[in-house]
Amino acid sequence: MAEMNRQIVIAKLPRGPLTEDHFVLRETPIPEPEAGQVLCRTLDLSIDAGTRAGLQGSASYAGKPETDIVMNGTVVARVEKSAAPGVPEGQIVTCGAGWQDYSVQKAERVRAVEPIGPLSWELGVLGGTGLTAYFGLLDVGRPAAGETVLVSAAAGATGNVAGQIARLKGCRVVGVTGSDAKAAVLTEKLGFDAAVNYKDDDFRGALKAACPDGIDVYFDNTGGAVLGAALFRMNTNGRIVCCGVVSQYDTANPEPGPRGVPGLLVNKRLTMRGFLLFDFIKGYAEARADLRRWIEEGKLQVLEDRFEGLETAPRALVDLLAGGNLGKRIVHVAD
Amino acid sequence: MAEMNRQIVIAKLPRGPLTEDHFVLRETPIPEPEAGQVLCRTLDLSIDAGTRAGLQGSASYAGKPETDIVMNGTVVARVEKSAAPGVPEGQIVTCGAGWQDYSVQKAERVRAVEPIGPLSWELGVLGGTGLTAYFGLLDVGRPAAGETVLVSAAAGATGNVAGQIARLKGCRVVGVTGSDAKAAVLTEKLGFDAAVNYKDDDFRGALKAACPDGIDVYFDNTGGAVLGAALFRMNTNGRIVCCGVVSQYDTANPEPGPRGVPGLLVNKRLTMRGFLLFDFIKGYAEARADLRRWIEEGKLQVLEDRFEGLETAPRALVDLLAGGNLGKRIVHVAD
Repeated sequence: MAEMNRQIVIAKLPRGPLTEDHFVLRETPIPEPEAGQVLCRTLDLSIDAGTRAGLQGSASYAGKPETDIVMNGTVVARVEKSAAPGVPEGQIVTCGAGWQDYSVQKAERVRAVEPIGPLSWELGVLGGTGLTAYFGLLDVGRPAAGETVLVSAAAGATGNVAGQIARLKGCRVVGVTGSDAKAAVLTEKLGFDAAVNYKDDDFRGALKAACPDGIDVYFDNTGGAVLGAALFRMNTNGRIVCCGVVSQYDTANPEPGPRGVPGLLVNKRLTMRGFLLFDFIKGYAEARADLRRWIEEGKLQVLEDRFEGLETAPRALVDLLAGGNLGKRIVHVAD
Repeated sequence: MAEMNRQIVIAKLPRGPLTEDHFVLRETPIPEPEAGQVLCRTLDLSIDAGTRAGLQGSASYAGKPETDIVMNGTVVARVEKSAAPGVPEGQIVTCGAGWQDYSVQKAERVRAVEPIGPLSWELGVLGGTGLTAYFGLLDVGRPAAGETVLVSAAAGATGNVAGQIARLKGCRVVGVTGSDAKAAVLTEKLGFDAAVNYKDDDFRGALKAACPDGIDVYFDNTGGAVLGAALFRMNTNGRIVCCGVVSQYDTANPEPGPRGVPGLLVNKRLTMRGFLLFDFIKGYAEARADLRRWIEEGKLQVLEDRFEGLETAPRALVDLLAGGNLGKRIVHVAD
């Protein structure tokens, strides 16, 4: 371990769309764990649209954004040195290391994992995005078999899992995505009943055609125009799961909300409910067990895309915000 | 009964703000009830902002608007002639007669009432607006004692009752209204803890000062800018009761929704839920009993304002849409 610790730092806060120039790579000595701490070697890094919201300030739950700090992110890591009983060297863990090769973590801030497949699954389908899909769909959306479930950013990390869970619960599932190629993956590989490209000139017409019986549950990862269109297709007593607002993250000036809020909520007796994953922490173990079983039974396909090397993380995030990902985006840092 | 039946008819549909010119008074013969019907003499007429939404078309639950029909509205009436067993002449009823002196109703479409005060209370605090306040606050908003409840259009027919119910459930109650005079009525006569005038230059600052512990339940009668301001003051896990959108009724071009939808719903884990009164029909009897008891016990003040004469109904509605009413607006038609 003669090498240095590479860190990707927030160099300046974005005022418009995020670019790679907002980050800078620096090198610092590899830290030493103190009593109760472990040194973690980052192996895979999760790239999440929500971290862009954290750079916006007031609209975010992440608090006031800062510069000159390591960009935040969840990782899978291997414990390289341990000064904490109960967390042995060699243990595979997840933790909030951020975008760097090494980090020191308090033992209680790492979660030991026993992988059932590639380690990166612990960041996606078995990690934050998979759990978000699980609780958002089942606990917030509460779809019944036979209902129509619409999912936006449906080829994204959370959306693809939400749609697949809805399908295995017996729902008709329609995805909204940003390219015909991604739409094809949804219907051909993941079992969605239909998929609609929101960039189509007649997106609203296509959405209507794809949802002939209206929409009972809308799992909204985007907000913005897709939410606006979905509102007009919602059925009476429909539920809108407010999971994310990716259409509004990559800007300093979020758009107004959709027309029809709150008018259509009244007329159609709709419920819109926002949630954050950590509200459901008591259910994580059961949810992970369900997700693992569905994967092992072949009912849930794992959709990932990967960048190679820590230095690609800024590009991986900028490209993700432009809709470049297909499934969970991972930066592979080390083996 | 040699006289004719005066009817106020929708002469043309509004494209901008509603004016009295959109209505015309005509006279027709008084109709005769057939078997199973009764002839109703309108005594008091309810003026409701929601009927303006019914003239907008697609945004309304009232269906496509028509001209050359009697303007709709709920009334208290006296049965003048009965061809229906079980509904005797002289019975006081409520029914959807619309803006006219006389109407023929099927017996099953009238509701017999035993008034506990002025007949007009059956249209307000014991009628549609009182019941809407009751179910919207208690069943949709579900405030707990000690929580802060914000009510918009708080001096209106629904809002004033919602606020008073919240107060008698032990909540801190803050009203939003459109004049300092109305604000004074809320705090001095109805027991609101604070009231804010949304026309104040520093409305947002005043709202913040009036809600030092944030807002747990927002009973939203207005949508628009007040909703936008309330969203930023909501507490985590807050509930927004979507009852009406009076800020957007008197136009052909409703505004976009508030900034912060859905972003703030996610970050604060808020629930916005729309409802219509008739979803709660099974609870009407119990709700009316509660409302009557609260009035009789002096816990619920009845706030009404009255116009005199059927011909004033267009002016009463136009003025109400401009915020002219204090409490439930009634047009008194006959004794």
